[in-house]
Amino acid sequence: MEFLAALKQKAALVDAALDKYLPTSDDYPGLIHEVMRYSVMAGGKRLRPVLTLAAAEAVGGKPELVIPAACAMELIHTYSLVHDDLPAMDNDDYRRGKLTSHKVYGEAMAVLAGDALLTLAFQLLADAGPGQVPPERLIRVVAEVAAGAGTRGLIGGQVVDTLAAGAAMDDATLEYIHRHKTGALYRVAVRSGAILAGTGARELASLTQYAEQLGLAFQIVDDILDVVGDEGKIGKPVGSDEKNSKLTYPSLYGLAAARARAKEAGDLALASLDGLGAGADFLRDMVAFVLDRDF
Amino acid sequence: MEFLAALKQKAALVDAALDKYLPTSDDYPGLIHEVMRYSVMAGGKRLRPVLTLAAAEAVGGKPELVIPAACAMELIHTYSLVHDDLPAMDNDDYRRGKLTSHKVYGEAMAVLAGDALLTLAFQLLADAGPGQVPPERLIRVVAEVAAGAGTRGLIGGQVVDTLAAGAAMDDATLEYIHRHKTGALYRVAVRSGAILAGTGARELASLTQYAEQLGLAFQIVDDILDVVGDEGKIGKPVGSDEKNSKLTYPSLYGLAAARARAKEAGDLALASLDGLGAGADFLRDMVAFVLDRDF
Repeated sequence: MEFLAALKQKAALVDAALDKYLPTSDDYPGLIHEVMRYSVMAGGKRLRPVLTLAAAEAVGGKPELVIPAACAMELIHTYSLVHDDLPAMDNDDYRRGKLTSHKVYGEAMAVLAGDALLTLAFQLLADAGPGQVPPERLIRVVAEVAAGAGTRGLIGGQVVDTLAAGAAMDDATLEYIHRHKTGALYRVAVRSGAILAGTGARELASLTQYAEQLGLAFQIVDDILDVVGDEGKIGKPVGSDEKNSKLTYPSLYGLAAARARAKEAGDLALASLDGLGAGADFLRDMVAFVLDRDF
Repeated sequence: MEFLAALKQKAALVDAALDKYLPTSDDYPGLIHEVMRYSVMAGGKRLRPVLTLAAAEAVGGKPELVIPAACAMELIHTYSLVHDDLPAMDNDDYRRGKLTSHKVYGEAMAVLAGDALLTLAFQLLADAGPGQVPPERLIRVVAEVAAGAGTRGLIGGQVVDTLAAGAAMDDATLEYIHRHKTGALYRVAVRSGAILAGTGARELASLTQYAEQLGLAFQIVDDILDVVGDEGKIGKPVGSDEKNSKLTYPSLYGLAAARARAKEAGDLALASLDGLGAGADFLRDMVAFVLDRDF
């Protein structure tokens, strides 16, 4: 199957499952479920959950078995955006082309909806259908996801990013932010799919390397699009990083060097899949997709 | 052992473990770990984690094996307080006699520290030492805790409490708030200890009933103390519920009826332990402790 069609199919699987797992506004208390759905259904690219499905495939597993875990990745990603957008943090009014959660529902509900998305993510990780996945794999993934989403992962990146805004720039700090704020969840999304599918240590090491480089490439391209992108496509105002005095690859190295660094990360991602067979072709195609995207 | 000495011993076990599990300000990024510790170490009563240890004992299990899960209960409780105190929510300046997290570290760090405490809780639940507790029990507890902390539990109670502030009072709403905002975590704390220790269905049902009634008694006494308590002992201004137009038992039924309702819940809690042996004596003594406390 052609890559874009396969991507669309996987994202549709994730969307259908998210719709099934998220309570609706008919479930009491209805408002919080409406707020959770508002942000999750605002239409992200679903790259993290798709990577979980693709990593399971790459090691010969059944993607269906990792759908709850894949959805958990999207819920964690969404929770981090909802809290990140709060007035006390980045104070963003728009995300994915729509008003942010706190602009529509107020700050209290945005805080609680973020908390609820994170909590639901762990509920999904604990539930892979009875007897479908051995419990020792499930519990290992809970531990990995919690570590990747915590202060040595996603939250750590967010903390350093918040503290660095407006401060003098430094390449070690930028690297730390990217590796943690974006990289940690890419890493965990890929590893979770592979672990649940029953990977060996060698494949897992290759996939981990792949995920780290892909996440880095993704984040550099994100930074570049914030400078040169099309507002209608990226769904937020161009130049918002500059407005917030955010540390970025283009601001630190210039556009040309940032592009070269993204390309290099993509090449390393591809090289790390050398030991894997045709099952990893989707992951290979993902590299060009992430580098060439304009949204 | 006399009850207060046993309580102190269990709380000390929990405190030592929390100190071990929480990263320090020497671990990068140090600030977030300082903020997490500030709230956790502000000196709560540790009743929830103590209940986890005591529930394991009540069914003949080793309390040591449930220490990570016990600590997870305290981290979830603390995260909910940190977010609850935010300006967008209850806007409280003091908690446990100390300035609240956002007053000391700012709102961004308080939001992130709450997120980090919730995340670390799930990491602890996944880690009970290698081979000590069967993984199927661990994963069952992750699912239970996530459900109890989510929108049908703790967060649901918080949402309804937030929406009800200032609105007309109604006893079904008050009951919902108490059963969810406080009750859900008491329930999960007790059940987790019992499940990890390998309880049977009958014991688990009794302990669940116990936890629900104890949580209710605790919350009613909390409401009463907010009216008649000693500020120095309860660690926050007396009358803060009234200030926030919070729905409470005394405001709805009057003090005498609220006291009677707390006593009734305590009696039901005791009765539900009838089928359990001397291992449950600590849980029995806990009922009088919760009813008679003045802090």
